[in-house]
Amino acid sequence: MTVKSLNSATIPVPAQTIIDFARQFDPQPYHLDPEAGANSIFGGLCASGWQVAAYATRLLGEALLQANIPFVDITSVDHMRWKRPTFVDDSIRVELHVLDRCTDSPIPQCDTLRIDARVLNQADAEVAHLMASVAVAKAQVS
Amino acid sequence: MTVKSLNSATIPVPAQTIIDFARQFDPQPYHLDPEAGANSIFGGLCASGWQVAAYATRLLGEALLQANIPFVDITSVDHMRWKRPTFVDDSIRVELHVLDRCTDSPIPQCDTLRIDARVLNQADAEVAHLMASVAVAKAQVS
Repeated sequence: MTVKSLNSATIPVPAQTIIDFARQFDPQPYHLDPEAGANSIFGGLCASGWQVAAYATRLLGEALLQANIPFVDITSVDHMRWKRPTFVDDSIRVELHVLDRCTDSPIPQCDTLRIDARVLNQADAEVAHLMASVAVAKAQVS
Repeated sequence: MTVKSLNSATIPVPAQTIIDFARQFDPQPYHLDPEAGANSIFGGLCASGWQVAAYATRLLGEALLQANIPFVDITSVDHMRWKRPTFVDDSIRVELHVLDRCTDSPIPQCDTLRIDARVLNQADAEVAHLMASVAVAKAQVS
């Protein structure tokens, strides 16, 4: 059952954010250096999968808030698969479906929404697929 | 079947990395500001779950490489749950079990290892649990 379908805003992924993220959190050569990226299995400088995941959560959280669903935070991931690299200067956005809701959450005073989210690039190609549970504030959900 | 169990190194999580990560990738008040953190449901400035996930992958990749298993990258997550916040100046490490291996991977010339990883803090309390598939270079796996 899909309760609600939403589209997020779009976020660009410039080189500096790819390199900044990788330097601190995922120091693989193809996330750090354009030449190493070009010579890698991916064929170009590309973002860490976790950078994509963090952007996806940010975009889906903002899309929920914009739809007056009081998103608090992501609490678990039931499945996540990266489908293709996010290259330098790609843009990503999220198409999300709220699947169901339960009146329980690891975060106090929250309910849980189960979300199916597809991360798409500027060519509408699927970059990642994510099934996740998010906490939303209880009082304001109706 | 657990093929191999490994322990990673430990990584500290200082305030500046929490704030730097959050500013770019997960701008929630309790990841950005100590006072907002103290007044939040979490009770203190704490790291984005994605920062924890990125560190966990980095630590488990390094642990695999140290054990002469040629880790290339994480390719999917079958399950991830955040159990408790990672507060400022906590340290995290990963206990991981290599569950099984298959001769297929979305990354060329790689096999897939399925990994069960627990992220623990300095008090050995579980911060997150992660079931993931990682790509390892084919030629060197034996």
